[in-house]
Amino acid sequence: MADISKCPPLSRSSVQAAHNLIRSNIHLTPVLTCQTLTDIASTPQSPEALKGTEYEGKEPARPKINLFFKCENLQKIGAFKARGAFHALARLTDEELERGVVTHSSGNHAQALALAARTRGVKAHIVMPTISTPSKIAGTKSYGADVIFSGSTSTEREAVVADVIARTGAILVPPYDHPDIILGQGTMALELETQVEDLIARNSELGARQRIVNGAKARNGDVRHKQALHAVIAPCGGGGMLSGIAIALEGTGITVFGAEPEFEGADDAVRGLAAGKRVESVKTLTIADGLRTPVGEIPWTIISDKKKVRGVYSVSEEQIKAAMKLVMERMKVFVEPSAVVGLAVVLYDEGFRRLVEEESGEEGWNIGVIFSGGNTTLEAIAKLFEAPEEKKERAEGILGKDGERVAENVAG
Amino acid sequence: MADISKCPPLSRSSVQAAHNLIRSNIHLTPVLTCQTLTDIASTPQSPEALKGTEYEGKEPARPKINLFFKCENLQKIGAFKARGAFHALARLTDEELERGVVTHSSGNHAQALALAARTRGVKAHIVMPTISTPSKIAGTKSYGADVIFSGSTSTEREAVVADVIARTGAILVPPYDHPDIILGQGTMALELETQVEDLIARNSELGARQRIVNGAKARNGDVRHKQALHAVIAPCGGGGMLSGIAIALEGTGITVFGAEPEFEGADDAVRGLAAGKRVESVKTLTIADGLRTPVGEIPWTIISDKKKVRGVYSVSEEQIKAAMKLVMERMKVFVEPSAVVGLAVVLYDEGFRRLVEEESGEEGWNIGVIFSGGNTTLEAIAKLFEAPEEKKERAEGILGKDGERVAENVAG
Repeated sequence: MADISKCPPLSRSSVQAAHNLIRSNIHLTPVLTCQTLTDIASTPQSPEALKGTEYEGKEPARPKINLFFKCENLQKIGAFKARGAFHALARLTDEELERGVVTHSSGNHAQALALAARTRGVKAHIVMPTISTPSKIAGTKSYGADVIFSGSTSTEREAVVADVIARTGAILVPPYDHPDIILGQGTMALELETQVEDLIARNSELGARQRIVNGAKARNGDVRHKQALHAVIAPCGGGGMLSGIAIALEGTGITVFGAEPEFEGADDAVRGLAAGKRVESVKTLTIADGLRTPVGEIPWTIISDKKKVRGVYSVSEEQIKAAMKLVMERMKVFVEPSAVVGLAVVLYDEGFRRLVEEESGEEGWNIGVIFSGGNTTLEAIAKLFEAPEEKKERAEGILGKDGERVAENVAG
Repeated sequence: MADISKCPPLSRSSVQAAHNLIRSNIHLTPVLTCQTLTDIASTPQSPEALKGTEYEGKEPARPKINLFFKCENLQKIGAFKARGAFHALARLTDEELERGVVTHSSGNHAQALALAARTRGVKAHIVMPTISTPSKIAGTKSYGADVIFSGSTSTEREAVVADVIARTGAILVPPYDHPDIILGQGTMALELETQVEDLIARNSELGARQRIVNGAKARNGDVRHKQALHAVIAPCGGGGMLSGIAIALEGTGITVFGAEPEFEGADDAVRGLAAGKRVESVKTLTIADGLRTPVGEIPWTIISDKKKVRGVYSVSEEQIKAAMKLVMERMKVFVEPSAVVGLAVVLYDEGFRRLVEEESGEEGWNIGVIFSGGNTTLEAIAKLFEAPEEKKERAEGILGKDGERVAENVAG
């Protein structure tokens, strides 16, 4: 990885420079809208939904929200991680590239680095735990990477990485805790900003033309007179993407929010912000498996700055599932659980909804929601949405973790 | 429904007229491409995949295929049925509209008619079996329709429909066996034809510009010199969509194919074509639940005409599931099982693949694949893709049909 001391500053113009470097390697992913979801977001929650929260018994918020979905699930390798990986490689010298790159990851970063390396004709060594699912190992190998197995503790993985570096001189490309990765991920925000402007301008033009057709006068030049995008909400795991977006949008007047799962302490950013100190380790099995890591040191310097990230909100596993169900069944877009935590906050976090109502006024807010990836399987979805009877049995230990019946419990 | 004797002829120009009538009511659904799926389609099947078929031991076909997906899952109400329903209503007189409309359906046609009726300010009576899933009943009611329950046999349903007509004078809008419905569904083919032309022209322009950049000469006017779309393959249930597409594309040189599930005799078109006689009744529980009906009388007159529909192919339940898995996991697009039977034929039917190889030559074929709808639920997907252990138990009767454990079998 490029030496941190030689990295460009974490600024909007550095993100713009990163975008120029990687533009030809990545997809300009579409920004989609969905009237059904926009309507649901703009409908007050039921009083029942607020039971057990600090808002119980209070009038549910009535925010006006227009949703714009940045579909990074349609990015190369099926997730935004391609941006950071391509940027990290673009910032290495030819000499450095010749040494190859290495990382440890069993997720989207592994495939992103493998793809970026293959594109540049560079050797990639990916250290994966032996217990990784065969499909992920196959996926990473399919991009031509050299997959090396390790134990699943961080000590074991790091030992194998150190060994690869000692053996090959390969350069470590970490998944999020590096300026080049952060700047790369931030590029999606530049695209989103312009795409929402274009969508709104096109709709206004259509509206203006319609008014002419209807006999009313269209005012010239009224098409881009207002700020298009008011806020962006993005998932937060290691924080590379969220901090990148915050940097990309600094000075634009667009407010940036983060979203996390809360299950088993996965809400480390929320807790860290409350305590005024980064949470350094997290052990959670949230279904949002891309967000199980704590925020990295460099991302934390951005995320803990209120002027850059206005706030981070957390949602429950059931809220993530409900958002996933809406996105797939209503919008017909295939997403992984981690991708929908931002939408879940918009729909179900009453604190967030109150803030939007208070700050946006009559006009409402145009909110950009980042769908970070779509790398899940139908079998994984089957486990999440299996019939309640089966789930109950799993909880009671009649079915084992992998759906296998636990024989000794059955007879009872 | 408009009197059949007064309907426009089943011709391309009638489909164009239908398109003009409904254009403002429907979505111009996108045509998407996916390099991964195009690559898979252009890769020979493995010799193992041909075992047990008439092609066992033969060299697998090597067709060159470019896929273009017409995403009617992104149509209003989540399926192409909106086209036929809006067209059926557009063809009624104001007097007729005042009487309201009626149909029996528990599927996409019910919601399509309900939406079209609401849009026109017309009363819709939808007869649904009492055993319909609550979500479908709620969906239909949410469009403002009057839902009336009946028994689940066709005699029971028809009696209730007859009663509604006697009581209200409402006009019956059948799901597929009527010229207005057929012409309405055919409109998607006109869009697909133009969209593929545009996509290919844009790519050629890009290519031409790239060649200039690279120092080579671009030939002027070489952008639209070839036929863009060579073939279309569409699912076939009642046959309204397939026959409509065939009519829309008559005389264009574009070859039209149909696709069916084969499970429990759902391949009634294939069997009817072989026997030279329409199969009049089908009783199947194929997972492609939109395709459980036999081809209707009027669609049959088109589908059985080799000059209009070149052939119909059928696929297994496992092939439908495999295609569904590819579309969701690789393309990130949410589809119902019925939507992918055309893709399953392209990928897995060796007879179809040989035909493409023989007829398309070195250039290959650009094939339009209709994704007919996306109305399924994550719970339904969970049942289709549950872990093999659970499926085995279901087959052995340890789990009941709805996932409930059959208590008496457990102790053994």
